[in-house]
Amino acid sequence: MSESFEFSRNNELLALYAKNASILVFKMFGVTALTARARFATRKFPSIEDAKALNGSLGTDDKIERRRRAHLNDLENIPSFLCISFLYLLTEPEPEVAKTLFWTYTGARVIHTLVYAIKPVPQPARALSFGVGLGITCYMAGKVLIHFCSPK
Amino acid sequence: MSESFEFSRNNELLALYAKNASILVFKMFGVTALTARARFATRKFPSIEDAKALNGSLGTDDKIERRRRAHLNDLENIPSFLCISFLYLLTEPEPEVAKTLFWTYTGARVIHTLVYAIKPVPQPARALSFGVGLGITCYMAGKVLIHFCSPK
Amino acid sequence: MSESFEFSRNNELLALYAKNASILVFKMFGVTALTARARFATRKFPSIEDAKALNGSLGTDDKIERRRRAHLNDLENIPSFLCISFLYLLTEPEPEVAKTLFWTYTGARVIHTLVYAIKPVPQPARALSFGVGLGITCYMAGKVLIHFCSPK
Repeated sequence: MSESFEFSRNNELLALYAKNASILVFKMFGVTALTARARFATRKFPSIEDAKALNGSLGTDDKIERRRRAHLNDLENIPSFLCISFLYLLTEPEPEVAKTLFWTYTGARVIHTLVYAIKPVPQPARALSFGVGLGITCYMAGKVLIHFCSPK
Repeated sequence: MSESFEFSRNNELLALYAKNASILVFKMFGVTALTARARFATRKFPSIEDAKALNGSLGTDDKIERRRRAHLNDLENIPSFLCISFLYLLTEPEPEVAKTLFWTYTGARVIHTLVYAIKPVPQPARALSFGVGLGITCYMAGKVLIHFCSPK
Repeated sequence: MSESFEFSRNNELLALYAKNASILVFKMFGVTALTARARFATRKFPSIEDAKALNGSLGTDDKIERRRRAHLNDLENIPSFLCISFLYLLTEPEPEVAKTLFWTYTGARVIHTLVYAIKPVPQPARALSFGVGLGITCYMAGKVLIHFCSPK
């Protein structure tokens, strides 16, 4: 099939990828907005020109740091997923399996942000949402490795 | 059109992408070099083996931290752009619009680095360059989402 | 050739990319696991809900910070490589050259992790492994830029 992997919306796997990638990028920028909001609320900024322009001071606080950690966790996971999940589409997955994996991944990352950056809840809520995303990426990376290592 | 999205330099949209991606990666590595230079200038290093090899001490300073923040801001924005802007090419954009968006994005990120990591200037210089990049990525992500969600 | 860049495992360049991308992603997640292990060993966590669930305290230590720096260095290098090295495949490289560059890159990044996050050794071990990866990415980005800027 992959010989004819079609780079258009007629390709339902590509459309699945494009929709999830857009949502994940919007979600990451949501964390950017949350961090900015926490900085404005506390008037604590990382750079002197920000503090001057906004009548604040240099510094940080717990809520800002929590949102920055959520963001860093996104950076550690989502770009890898965006690369590997595209390669996974080339391994001829069952469309239903691919759909389940993509939407579960995106859902897990949204929950991760909710329970980390928005409303902290006791563990293992965050550990589970993180683990689901990591597990799906590892499964896909394993499938990619096996597929592209095997004789045609 | 996308059925025939051509993976060669004959495809002017792909060439646009490839040129901007290369420049953005060189720009990011420029920040790496700036941070290294600030560390060498102050002899302040993050790891004990660096301090030993270079006759310095453990630590950081304002200029190093400023460059690290500029770098982290790149990581929060540029990989997302590299994924989304490729998908945007598949939405059949007007070539002139695509060119304007890509070069404006790259220009805005270069300005962001200049006013953050090289020569700090009063806000809103950095906020504007950051906002332009973020706005373009969001516009493209929105276009990707709408395109791949709509019936063919 | 690129007109017929084939998105299947019959394309040896794509297979080369897919294998290296999977290994690099597994390697990055290895650093995630190492950081988690160091946190569990010292019972020092970044968020209060982790400390509560695991009977530990808020904080960090040298080993955790070293692994976090190794991880951040991955984030500064590997996503850029994953984008640029794919574009490099479209520049009609000699397969033997491409293979050497990809496997050297992956080897250098694995060594970087070993000497940074697992068993610190005196410099320039880490500087060399970092420099090899950076040099390969810059070479590829330069080749991409020249290829896509030149008349067909």
